[in-house]
Amino acid sequence: MRANRIRQLWAADQPVLNGWLSFACPFTAEVMAAQGYDSLTIDMQHGMVDFMTSLGMMQAMSASGVVPMARVAWLDPVEIMRILDAGAYGIICPMIETREDAERLVSYVRYPPTGVRSFGPSRAVFSAGTDYGERADEEVLCFAMIETRKGFDNMEEIASTPGLDGLYIGPADLALALTGRTYRTGFDRTEPELIDAIVKIREAAHAAGIRAALHCGSASYAAQATGWKFDLLTVSNDVRLLAAAARASVEEFRKTAKI
Amino acid sequence: MRANRIRQLWAADQPVLNGWLSFACPFTAEVMAAQGYDSLTIDMQHGMVDFMTSLGMMQAMSASGVVPMARVAWLDPVEIMRILDAGAYGIICPMIETREDAERLVSYVRYPPTGVRSFGPSRAVFSAGTDYGERADEEVLCFAMIETRKGFDNMEEIASTPGLDGLYIGPADLALALTGRTYRTGFDRTEPELIDAIVKIREAAHAAGIRAALHCGSASYAAQATGWKFDLLTVSNDVRLLAAAARASVEEFRKTAKI
Amino acid sequence: MRANRIRQLWAADQPVLNGWLSFACPFTAEVMAAQGYDSLTIDMQHGMVDFMTSLGMMQAMSASGVVPMARVAWLDPVEIMRILDAGAYGIICPMIETREDAERLVSYVRYPPTGVRSFGPSRAVFSAGTDYGERADEEVLCFAMIETRKGFDNMEEIASTPGLDGLYIGPADLALALTGRTYRTGFDRTEPELIDAIVKIREAAHAAGIRAALHCGSASYAAQATGWKFDLLTVSNDVRLLAAAARASVEEFRKTAKI
Amino acid sequence: MRANRIRQLWAADQPVLNGWLSFACPFTAEVMAAQGYDSLTIDMQHGMVDFMTSLGMMQAMSASGVVPMARVAWLDPVEIMRILDAGAYGIICPMIETREDAERLVSYVRYPPTGVRSFGPSRAVFSAGTDYGERADEEVLCFAMIETRKGFDNMEEIASTPGLDGLYIGPADLALALTGRTYRTGFDRTEPELIDAIVKIREAAHAAGIRAALHCGSASYAAQATGWKFDLLTVSNDVRLLAAAARASVEEFRKTAKI
Amino acid sequence: MRANRIRQLWAADQPVLNGWLSFACPFTAEVMAAQGYDSLTIDMQHGMVDFMTSLGMMQAMSASGVVPMARVAWLDPVEIMRILDAGAYGIICPMIETREDAERLVSYVRYPPTGVRSFGPSRAVFSAGTDYGERADEEVLCFAMIETRKGFDNMEEIASTPGLDGLYIGPADLALALTGRTYRTGFDRTEPELIDAIVKIREAAHAAGIRAALHCGSASYAAQATGWKFDLLTVSNDVRLLAAAARASVEEFRKTAKI
Amino acid sequence: MRANRIRQLWAADQPVLNGWLSFACPFTAEVMAAQGYDSLTIDMQHGMVDFMTSLGMMQAMSASGVVPMARVAWLDPVEIMRILDAGAYGIICPMIETREDAERLVSYVRYPPTGVRSFGPSRAVFSAGTDYGERADEEVLCFAMIETRKGFDNMEEIASTPGLDGLYIGPADLALALTGRTYRTGFDRTEPELIDAIVKIREAAHAAGIRAALHCGSASYAAQATGWKFDLLTVSNDVRLLAAAARASVEEFRKTAKI
Repeated sequence: MRANRIRQLWAADQPVLNGWLSFACPFTAEVMAAQGYDSLTIDMQHGMVDFMTSLGMMQAMSASGVVPMARVAWLDPVEIMRILDAGAYGIICPMIETREDAERLVSYVRYPPTGVRSFGPSRAVFSAGTDYGERADEEVLCFAMIETRKGFDNMEEIASTPGLDGLYIGPADLALALTGRTYRTGFDRTEPELIDAIVKIREAAHAAGIRAALHCGSASYAAQATGWKFDLLTVSNDVRLLAAAARASVEEFRKTAKI
Repeated sequence: MRANRIRQLWAADQPVLNGWLSFACPFTAEVMAAQGYDSLTIDMQHGMVDFMTSLGMMQAMSASGVVPMARVAWLDPVEIMRILDAGAYGIICPMIETREDAERLVSYVRYPPTGVRSFGPSRAVFSAGTDYGERADEEVLCFAMIETRKGFDNMEEIASTPGLDGLYIGPADLALALTGRTYRTGFDRTEPELIDAIVKIREAAHAAGIRAALHCGSASYAAQATGWKFDLLTVSNDVRLLAAAARASVEEFRKTAKI
Repeated sequence: MRANRIRQLWAADQPVLNGWLSFACPFTAEVMAAQGYDSLTIDMQHGMVDFMTSLGMMQAMSASGVVPMARVAWLDPVEIMRILDAGAYGIICPMIETREDAERLVSYVRYPPTGVRSFGPSRAVFSAGTDYGERADEEVLCFAMIETRKGFDNMEEIASTPGLDGLYIGPADLALALTGRTYRTGFDRTEPELIDAIVKIREAAHAAGIRAALHCGSASYAAQATGWKFDLLTVSNDVRLLAAAARASVEEFRKTAKI
Repeated sequence: MRANRIRQLWAADQPVLNGWLSFACPFTAEVMAAQGYDSLTIDMQHGMVDFMTSLGMMQAMSASGVVPMARVAWLDPVEIMRILDAGAYGIICPMIETREDAERLVSYVRYPPTGVRSFGPSRAVFSAGTDYGERADEEVLCFAMIETRKGFDNMEEIASTPGLDGLYIGPADLALALTGRTYRTGFDRTEPELIDAIVKIREAAHAAGIRAALHCGSASYAAQATGWKFDLLTVSNDVRLLAAAARASVEEFRKTAKI
Repeated sequence: MRANRIRQLWAADQPVLNGWLSFACPFTAEVMAAQGYDSLTIDMQHGMVDFMTSLGMMQAMSASGVVPMARVAWLDPVEIMRILDAGAYGIICPMIETREDAERLVSYVRYPPTGVRSFGPSRAVFSAGTDYGERADEEVLCFAMIETRKGFDNMEEIASTPGLDGLYIGPADLALALTGRTYRTGFDRTEPELIDAIVKIREAAHAAGIRAALHCGSASYAAQATGWKFDLLTVSNDVRLLAAAARASVEEFRKTAKI
Repeated sequence: MRANRIRQLWAADQPVLNGWLSFACPFTAEVMAAQGYDSLTIDMQHGMVDFMTSLGMMQAMSASGVVPMARVAWLDPVEIMRILDAGAYGIICPMIETREDAERLVSYVRYPPTGVRSFGPSRAVFSAGTDYGERADEEVLCFAMIETRKGFDNMEEIASTPGLDGLYIGPADLALALTGRTYRTGFDRTEPELIDAIVKIREAAHAAGIRAALHCGSASYAAQATGWKFDLLTVSNDVRLLAAAARASVEEFRKTAKI
C-alpha cells in the first residue's frame, strides 16, 4: 500500500498544507493537485459534490502524489466507508460532540477487530495497493471536527479516543456555537476568546498525543497558525480561490483600462 | 428576446470584458458569472467540456445577466447550431482562413433567408424569449478567429463578409502561424512584429465596420489593449486563474511559515 | 438575499401554486419554470433524482424567479443541509410523527443559536445573495409532512413547534396510514373520512399560526382545496403531466386517424 | 435480430405513430415509451441531448418494444455510425439536398459492399441480437429529410436513391426555405402552397417506391395527414407536451380557484 | 406486475445464480445481463456506483428478463425505498445484527399496513407494471445479511422475522467478525470453523422457512455450495471477472509470444 | 513531458501489448490499467464512450504508467485535437484511404509549422508536463488505419507520409472491404488471402520505416502475430473480456452444479 505522505511529513516534524475542493470537477482536482499542496480534501458536506464526482476527483489526482482526503457530511457509516473504499486516505468528520461519537467515528474507519468497517475496498486495492486490507488501518487518517459547544466541552475525552488521529477545528461553526451571532461568520478568527478556544483545542489534541488541524481562510493566517503548533493547516478552497482571482482580474482590468 | 448586453455596451462605446470557461462544471460557471464579467465564453475547442456540460453551464449563469458565448471547436454547422439552440448569444469560430470560410460561418449562425441555420431553438425560446425565432439574427454575435497565416493574409475579405460581427484574435496560434517556433507559445505578445500583426487585424475589422476582439492572458495586457481600441477583451480563463491563485496561496504559506 | 416569493404571496393573502419535479433533468426544470408556477419542488424522496441533478435543476430554474424547494427523502440532516447549501428556499420533510421529529427538522434548517445547521452555504451565497448567512433563517421555509397515523395523532404539538412554517399533507401515504388498504392509493381523496382528516390538519396548522399545504393530483381538486383555505397547493408532477399528455396525444391520433 | 416493428406495420398497411425526444433523460424516454407510440426518435439535432444520454435513453426504452430511432444532427458519418452501433433502428438525416447527399447517407447506414459503415456494433449485438451484423442492413431504416429549396427541387432523384427507405418532411425548415419569412415558423402548415409542397414530396416518395413521413405539431393534424397517405407521422415532442400540459394545469388552477 | 423470476425458480426447486455489479456503467450491466444469470445485484455498498447510475443500470438490463436487485449500503430507509421506487425487485441489506434490525428492514421494504414504505413507485410502475402498488409486497425480495458476531449469534430470531425472505451470507466480513484477522480476507472459505458457521446460517434460514444465499468468489465454490442446499448463489462480480480475464489475456500473450 | 513508453519499448525492440476500452467508465479503465498492458486505447469510434468519459478514463489511468491512446471516430480535426488536449499520447485514425488523408491526419496531430494542430493543451500540460508544447510532436503517436480497399491499394504512399508513425490494421473492416461478405465478420483472420493482405500491410509499413499494428481478438492470435513482426498488438477489449468471463463463469456453475 502506498504510504500516507501526511504521516511521513509528521514523522519528519513538518506541518501539512491541505487544500479544499468544493467544485464537482475532476479536472479542477487535477489542476489543484499540481499546485504544491501536501493533501487535498474533498468537501462532501458543504461542497457541491457527490460520491461519483468525488471518485472521479480522486482518480484525477491519483498520479500527483497528493494525499486525497474527504470531509464527510455527517457521522454516517455509509458515506465514510464508501469514500474509503473509493480510495480516500483520510476522513474528516464534522460535528463530533462526545466520546461516543468519536468512538463510532473510529469504528467506521477501522476494520474488525478494531472497528466495524465492512470489507470491500473496491477501488482502494487498485489505487492504494493490493495489500490494502492489511495496511489500511495504519495508513488511513481519522479526524474529529470540534465545532459545537458540546464538542468543545468534551474535547479532552474526544481527543483520548483510541484510534483517533487528530482534532480538526472548523472555526466558522465553532464561532457560531460558542458566541452565537455575536461575531461575523467565517474563518481566520481574531477575537481573543476564539483564538483562546482554538488554542485550547490544539492543546487538548497534543496532550492526548494526537494531531491538531485548523481550517483557515488565508495563507497568512495559516502561516501564523503554524506558530501555534498546528500540524495540518487547510487554506481556503477552490471556490474562494477562483472567485477571488477572477474578481481581482476584473477589477484590475476595469481600473487600469479606466472603464 | 432578452437583448444582447454586448451590443448594448458597444452602442454605448464601452469595451467588453469577456471571461473564459474551460472547466466542465456548471457551478464554476455560476461562480465566474458573479465576478463582474460582461460576458463569459465556454471554450468548446480547448476546454475540457462537451455539449451537455456547456448546456449546464449556460443554465447556471442564466440568472446573472452575463452574456453566454461559445468558442466552438471548428467551422462545424452541427456544433454551432446546437450551442445556439442551447442558448448561446455568440459564436467565436477558430481557424477562419478565407472569405468562403467566413461566409459559411455566418450562414450557420443565421436563419434563412440570410443563412442556413436549421430551425429548432429548443432551449433558447425558454432562456432568451419566445420571440427568439424572429429576433435571434439581430442579437446573436458571430466572430471569426484570425489565427493562421492564410487567415491573416485574407483578413480584409474576411472582415467584409456580410453578417459577420467581429474578428477575434487568438495570439497563441497566430504567433505559431506567423513566426513558427521562433517565439514561445502563449498570449500577451510583446514582440513588435506580433503587436503589429494584432493591430493590423484590429484595423481591418474597424475598416470593415465590424468589431475587434483580443484574447489576453492578463488584465494588465488587456487594459493596455483597450488603448489599441479593441472592442472586446478576453482575460485569462478559469483554469489559469485557479491554478495561479492556488499556487500563490501555497507559496505564500510556505514562505511565510518558513517550512 | 433574494426574498422568498412564497412568503410575499402569503403576506398578500394569495395561495401558492407549487409544481413537482421527478425527472433528473435540468432542462425539464427550466421548461417547468416557464409555465406559471409560483414554486417548484424537487422530489428527492420518490423522484428519480439525486443531489447533483437537483443542483443542476435549481441552477436551470434560477433565472425564472420561481421559488426552488426540495422534498427531502427523510428527516436526515445531511440531505437537508446540503440541498439548502445548494440554494433551496424551502424544505418539505416526509414522515414527521412527533414533536421531537419536528424540532429536529427545524434545527437542521436553522443556523445556531436557533438550530444546528452547519455553516457553509457554498452555492446559496451566489444564487440567493452574499448576505445569505444573515437572512437565510428568515427566508427559508420549513414544512413537516403529516402522512402517518402517529403524525396525525400528534398534529397539534407538531404544528406548534417554534420555527416550523407549515404542515404539508401527503394524501397517498396518509390514506394508507389511516385506512390501510381499504381504499385505492393516490391523491385527490374524496372519501369523507379522508377529507375530514385533511381538513383537520389544515385547521391544526392555522390554529398554531402556521401554513397548510396539500399535495394534489389535479388542478381542479387543488382549486377546490383553495376553498378549504389551504395556503399552498401542489398540482401533479412532471412525470404524470408528460405521461398523460403523451397518452392523450396518442389516443387522439389513433382515434381520429381511425387506425 | 429483433425485427423492426415499423417495417412490420408497413407490411400490414398500417401508418406508424412516432414520438420525439428532446430531453436528455432516460426516464423521460422510458415514460414516453409506455404511452402507445410505435417508435420514438431521439432528436440529436435540436434536442438538448448528446450521445451518452441517447445511449441511456435507448437502454431505458429497450424493454418496451417501441422502435428507437435517431434524428442525427447532420450528414455526418461519425454520428450516424455511432448511434447505430448504440442500437438505433432508424436514422432520420436532416438537410439532404442532392442525390449525392442521399447516396452518402445510405452508404453511412449500410455495411459493405452496399455502403461504408464501419463494423463494430458494440451495443447493437446485445440490444438487437447476435446476428446483427448479418441482418442490420435489412432492418435499419434510413430517412432523408427534405427541408431546403435545393432538396425540394431534387426530391425525385433523392427518392430514387437505392437503399433509401423514406423521405421525411421537416415543415418548419421547409417553410422557411420555400417562402422565406413570409409565414410564421413551425409545424402543421395550412398555407395552400405549403400543403401542396408537402403532398408533392409524399408523391415523389411513393412514386419511387419508398415511404413518406411528416413531422406534425398536433395529433389532429397528423391524423389528417394519414388521409394524405403518409406512412409515418411524428406528433409533437416531449418538451412541447410537458410545457403545454403544465401550462394548461396552471391555467386551470388559476382560473378555477379565481386567483 | 411482472413476476419475480427468483420466486418462480424457487417454486420450481431451482437454485438461483446471481451476478454482482460494481462498475458504474449501464452498458456493463446490459452486457452482464446477456450472459445467463438469473438475477444481477447492484452493489450500492462497496460498488463504485450511486443512485443515478444504479437507475441507469436497471434501465439497461430491463429488457433482459434478469431480476434486478440491490445490495444497499446500510439499514437506511432512504436508500432502500429509493432503489425500490427505481424498480429493484430485491433488497440485500448488510450488517443485520438483531431481530429489531430485521424488523426495521422488512418495514422499509413493505407498504403499510405491513411496513412503513412510503408510497411513490415512480419508475416501478413503468418498469414492473401499473399494478405495482398492489403487488409489490408479494414480489419484492428482502434479504438480511449475516456477517457480524452479533448477527451470527442472533440468526434464529432474525430468520423468524415475519416478511423476511432470506438470510444472505457475506463470508469476507463474517470471517473477520468471527475469527478476527486469523485468516486471510475474502470469499470461498475453506476453514472448517467458517464452513461450519456458513452451514449453520443456512440451516437457521431453512428452519425458519426462508431462503439462504451465499456470496461466492468462484463458480466452482458456488456449485459446491448448491450441494449445501443454498437457494441463491452469487458468483464473483464484474470488477473481478474483468480484471482476471484481462490479466489472463496479458499473461497468455506475454508467455506465448515469449516477450 | 513524460516520455511515451511505446516509443521506449520500440527503441528496445519490444513489441507493445495494447488493450482496448469500450465501456464508458473511468473505474473500468483504472482496473484495466492494472493488468499489465503497455498501452490502453479508448475506442471513440465503436466504443460506447464520449469525450467527457474518455477524459475521466484517462485521468483514472494516469497513475498507472500505461500509455493512453484514442482510436478516434473519423479523420476529424475536432475530435483528434480535443482528445490530444485531454492528454492522449497516441491517435489511431480509422478509414485512411489516400496519401492526402494521411497528410491531413498528421497535420491534425502536429503543431505548426509541421501541422495545423491548434495550441491549447489544457489538460496535457498537467498530465504530461509543462513542456508539453515543445515536446508533444516528438512523443505523440499517429497511426493510420488501413481497412478499406482504397486504403489497401494506397498503402505504400500512405506509409511514406512524413510524420506518420504506423499503419494499424482493422481486420474486421478490412475483410468486409476486400472480400465483401464472403467470410464471417470479425478479427483473427485465418483465410490465406486475408493473412496475405495483413502481412503486405506490415511489410509496407516496415518498408517505409514506420511501425505496424494489428487488432486481434485473442492473445494466442496476437502472440502468433508477433512472429509476423508486428510492433503493436491489440488484444480483445473490455466488453468482450467481461462478457466471455461472465459467460464462462455462468456455464461452469450450471455445468458443475448440474442445474
